[in-house]
Amino acid sequence: MQEIEELNQAFYNAIEAGDLDRMSEIWIEDVPGRPALCVHPGWPMLSGRSEVLRSWALIMANTTYIQFVLTDVQTTVLGDVAVVTCAENILTAADSDEPGFAAGRVVASSTYVRTPGGWRLWLYHGSPVLQSDDDEEEDQEQ
Amino acid sequence: MQEIEELNQAFYNAIEAGDLDRMSEIWIEDVPGRPALCVHPGWPMLSGRSEVLRSWALIMANTTYIQFVLTDVQTTVLGDVAVVTCAENILTAADSDEPGFAAGRVVASSTYVRTPGGWRLWLYHGSPVLQSDDDEEEDQEQ
Repeated sequence: MQEIEELNQAFYNAIEAGDLDRMSEIWIEDVPGRPALCVHPGWPMLSGRSEVLRSWALIMANTTYIQFVLTDVQTTVLGDVAVVTCAENILTAADSDEPGFAAGRVVASSTYVRTPGGWRLWLYHGSPVLQSDDDEEEDQEQ
Repeated sequence: MQEIEELNQAFYNAIEAGDLDRMSEIWIEDVPGRPALCVHPGWPMLSGRSEVLRSWALIMANTTYIQFVLTDVQTTVLGDVAVVTCAENILTAADSDEPGFAAGRVVASSTYVRTPGGWRLWLYHGSPVLQSDDDEEEDQEQ
């Protein structure tokens, strides 16, 4: 459990540091019928390790600054599969022509699989939270 | 594998039919530390069977007509866990004050768990595809 939560944190550290090598280590190798899968917020599904890592290279190349604060982290282990769900509270540098910061919220579910070499990330699914704050507060009151 | 794909289809049939009883049968019972989890497109994470089923009741009550055409359906079984990913091509009746239909695209990952009573849906994660069609076509050309 602790190993998986550390790996999940390492995933976000790799994005923050723009460390594509570390990101490559975290992602699983493709197996026929079980390619690596990744959904960035608002994107369609990317399938296969090379397509997934290319997308991370693109995102890292276009990100000046990004910081994640994770909340509601919940880890569930089911045999050789582990799922970590969390809310990503994101602070990014805005576009270079508009100085300042932008904030956003994403809900993520990440599925890790146990391999002979240790746990690896198989499926990352991040999605934008578009619901208003009012609605969220209502949810929390219930 | 076939059993899981049929269950995944039954999930969408239940939404189309507004059949909350069938939807209840498809979802897993909560277990301490492993509550049912659901992310509707654009929503934050809902946790626990009662909150999840309440959200489906709300959606069904507010949906006049909805039809799903699933593409890119991919099923992966890992022990007692199965993940189905697909693109939902959705046709809905527009708001009652604006007659006509609206179309949308969602990417979904659904995690099913084997229980003594059979496979049940544990985690549904749907997210809006906001990327332009041009970008998607580029992806397909690669």
